[in-house]
Parts: sequence; structure tokens; C-alpha cells
Amino acid sequence: MTPDWIAVDWGTSHLRVFAMGTDGILAERGSDRGMGKLARDEFEPAILALVEDWLGPMPMQIVVCGMAGARQGWIEAPYRTVPCPPVAKGAFIAAPAQNQRLKVQILPGLSQETPADVMRGEETQIAGALALLPGFDGVICLPGTHSKWAKISAGEVVSFQTFMTGELFALISSQSVLRHGMVSETWDEASFAQGLSDALSRPERFAAQLFALRAEGLLKALPPASARSRLSGLLIGAELAASKPYWLGQDILLVGAKTLSAAYASALTAQGATPRILDDTACTLAGLFAVRSQ
Amino acid sequence: MTPDWIAVDWGTSHLRVFAMGTDGILAERGSDRGMGKLARDEFEPAILALVEDWLGPMPMQIVVCGMAGARQGWIEAPYRTVPCPPVAKGAFIAAPAQNQRLKVQILPGLSQETPADVMRGEETQIAGALALLPGFDGVICLPGTHSKWAKISAGEVVSFQTFMTGELFALISSQSVLRHGMVSETWDEASFAQGLSDALSRPERFAAQLFALRAEGLLKALPPASARSRLSGLLIGAELAASKPYWLGQDILLVGAKTLSAAYASALTAQGATPRILDDTACTLAGLFAVRSQ
Repeated sequence: MTPDWIAVDWGTSHLRVFAMGTDGILAERGSDRGMGKLARDEFEPAILALVEDWLGPMPMQIVVCGMAGARQGWIEAPYRTVPCPPVAKGAFIAAPAQNQRLKVQILPGLSQETPADVMRGEETQIAGALALLPGFDGVICLPGTHSKWAKISAGEVVSFQTFMTGELFALISSQSVLRHGMVSETWDEASFAQGLSDALSRPERFAAQLFALRAEGLLKALPPASARSRLSGLLIGAELAASKPYWLGQDILLVGAKTLSAAYASALTAQGATPRILDDTACTLAGLFAVRSQ
Repeated sequence: MTPDWIAVDWGTSHLRVFAMGTDGILAERGSDRGMGKLARDEFEPAILALVEDWLGPMPMQIVVCGMAGARQGWIEAPYRTVPCPPVAKGAFIAAPAQNQRLKVQILPGLSQETPADVMRGEETQIAGALALLPGFDGVICLPGTHSKWAKISAGEVVSFQTFMTGELFALISSQSVLRHGMVSETWDEASFAQGLSDALSRPERFAAQLFALRAEGLLKALPPASARSRLSGLLIGAELAASKPYWLGQDILLVGAKTLSAAYASALTAQGATPRILDDTACTLAGLFAVRSQ
């Protein structure tokens, strides 16, 4: 099987590759060879390990978004500055490869001067969302390790803002003193709603709301599922409080993993908003396809 | 050298012992055998390793505050509930020891019903502060891993509130994506002040203010000392925003390590407050002495 081209989503912690044919995805593979674990000369072996048997006799076009274009990545793809369209025709950086059958093109991310901000990978998802919903005007939220909120108008990213919500959740739930009381696979929607409401109604008390989870665990046997769900609510609530100027009164589109998008949708709905949801992988592939066919 | 008694401050990560004579400290030792690293039967060996040559023929009184009295500690010393004096006569728990020359007494911590909160160790520092400043009425701030703010009136802890400020600083500065841009031993007072001001004037934007440190590092070469100091300012500012109902218009006493207390004093002074400072070790020892002599 030789695909028409290969789509690659290269994150900090993971690498995902898609064999693309005329009708879409032919095959999909992944590994934990994210940018964060690789030296410059380890990128080519990392991708070859996944795609070598997909290569034909001719050079294969491999279109890459994400952290492979970071300064510590395969080759730096300098940021494009907003306001601008999320992706631009021909704005690839060719990555050096010893294997002549690899024709690797890395998409640049976006930067914003004031307030200073950056994204790598989400610009491709935004381009994909705009390809799937042509003419969308409003705000796109991409929840995740570093959640992004982007204002979209006339096909351009006007401005954006990053929140460390997912990374804070991972750190606090697995590395802090709170970790003892939140080992659970269960979701507690009422506790999530309480955390949201606490954070949204008293956002300035964030630093105090965290330790209460520990104290209630000790004094009131707060169940781990409740603690974990409330922490999620507190962090997403803090993000929604801070991003309110972005989303209030706007058409909102969520682009993310299924469970996470559902949590954000539930939170935004409780605030009177009516967000739509698109799958993040679908948007990544639509974005890579769009930039390839431009 | 045989002391009159031994004072012990047993934290989660460290153990400190003080040989006490009529004129105060005769000797001081420490180890990293904090409560967090010890199983129940490892407490006695951990303390013996530090004090064995201080023991005489008679049982030695060893007065312990801190996490040794936690549920996962040497023996649980159940919380006393506020409002109450920070320490109470005879409210020790005797810890079981095989060595007959050890007479170990563990002080209980304090708990608060609503909002749920707990402390272990800080109650002793508060007792010490009140012994050093008899008749103090106002609010005592104990900055640290888990900063505490306690309302004091008529010798009692009326209420208190914990903030995970120090733990968040440690996690974010050493484990998050921001760690790359904040390796520095230098302090940047102007950046600290900026972080403080950002957090105090827009506390609801906390979740957004963090990632700006990363973006400014990438786009504007923000120096590591500035990033580190601004993170400290953001976190302490968030704490001050949340604890404002505690300290506004109150007599404020800071009990903590020198550098940290100075940072809090600078932050509070910028808000028009005039805090006093007491050394935390002096307060711990004064508190253990007070409870012993009660």
C-alpha cells in the first residue's frame, strides 16, 4: 500500500502519522517519539520507523504540523504573526532528510506580539475547522494541555490566548499533595459543576480553592472521583473566567478530544452559551489537506 | 552534652531537631527523613539517628510538632477544631517507642469545619508568635509550601485559610513547560512587582498570565530571572487577592523563612499594609517551649 501523501501531527509528547489516499485515511500509526524526547538528528529515524513501508519509489510528500517546527525541533519553522489566515499557501519549511524518498514539509505556527503568545499545531486545526465550516466567524476554543482561544474573522486568526489548564491539571492531580485524594477513573458531573461554579463566581479565590480539596479529603472523606472532577471544574472555570472577553456573546466552536470537548461544552452551556464541537483529529487532517491542496 | 529536652519540627520533607537547654538552643541537626518518606516503624529510627548521643540515662522529653502526627505519621494526633487556642496544655499524643529513653509527645494540628481546612505545625508557630508578641490581635500569615492565613483574637485562632502557593511555584517552575525559561538564582524585583500587580489587578486572569511567561521567553527573550520572579509575583499576588478579606485593614504578622517573608512584606507594603516579621524557627521553638511549660 502506497498512500498519495502522509499527514503528520508531531506533538511534544506524541507522534501520529496518517497514510492518506483519495478517499481519506488509509492507515494510522503513532508512537511516543514526541518532539520533547528527540535530538535534531532523531526526527528522521523516528518518522521512518512509522512510515518506511508506506514509501514508494518516488519521493513521498509528508506534511507535518506541530512541534517538529519548534526551535528545538527538526528544523525551525518561524512563526507567522497574527492577524493572518491560520495557514498560508507555500509557507512550509523543508526539513532536511538523508533518505531521498522523504519530502518533508513543516508548517509554521502562529505568534502574537501583544500579549505575547504562540501556537504550533492548533493553527492547522483552525484551518481544518474553517475548511469544514466555511465562513465561520466567532471564537474557536482548542482545549488541551495548553488550551487556546482564537478569535476568527473573515478567515483570519485575529488574536488568540493560551491557558495552561491541561498542564496544571496534570501537574496538580499527579504531582501535588492533592494527588493522594484523586486517584479515580470515575467522573462526577455534580462535583465538576461545583468546581466550575466556584471558579466562575469567585475567580480571585483560585489559589484558595485548591487546598480545600485536600482538607475535605481529610476531614469529610471527599471521594477521589469528586475531588478529581472538582479540580477539573476549578481549572476549566478559571479558564472560562479569564477567557470571557473572548467567548461572551460569540459563536463558539470547540475543537478537541471527545471527552474534554464535552466537559467544556457542558461548562459553556451552563453559562448560557451554545458551542458546537468538531473532532480535533478530523480538523488536523482537514487542515493539512487544505494547506496541501492550496 | 545532655539537653533538658528536645524540640522537633517534623515536616513532610524534612526533620529538624534541637537540643534545648535553660538558655535556649544547645545544638541543632536535621535530615531529609520527612514524614512523606517514612513508614510507621521508621519514625523512631529516624529520630534516634539524630538524637541518640543527646540522650542521658533518664527518659528524654521530645516535643514534636508537624506531620509526625498525621494519619500516615508516627501516630495520629487528631486535629483540634477552631476556634481554639493554637496549642493546649496536655494536648499531646504519646508516640510509641521501643527505646525506653524516648518520651515522645506529638502536638495535634488544627482543623476548621467550614470551609474545610487543616494545619499541622503552623499552630505551634502561631503559639510561638503569641508568646513572643503577647496580646497580638490581627492576622498571622505563614508563607510556605502551603501558606496559611490565620485570624487571631484573644489568644485564639478564630479561622484560617490555606493556599497552595509554594507548592504551585515548585511544580510550575520545575515541572511545567515554563521550567525551560526560568532557571536562575537571581531575583528581579521589578518583574516580581509586575507579576504581583498583574495578579492583584486582574486575579481572574491567573490561568492566562502563566503562559505569557513562556511566550515572552520565545518571542521577546524574557530573561530567566525575570520569568522566575514574575511567576513568584503572580502566585503571591493571587494569594493576596484571595486572602484580602483576611488582611485588609488588619494588623499583619508574617512568620516564615527570611527571603520568603521579605517577598510577602514587599507585596503587602505595595498594597498599603505594614506587616511585621518574625522568624519561623524562632516561633516554632517558642511554641514548643510554651506548650512544654504550660
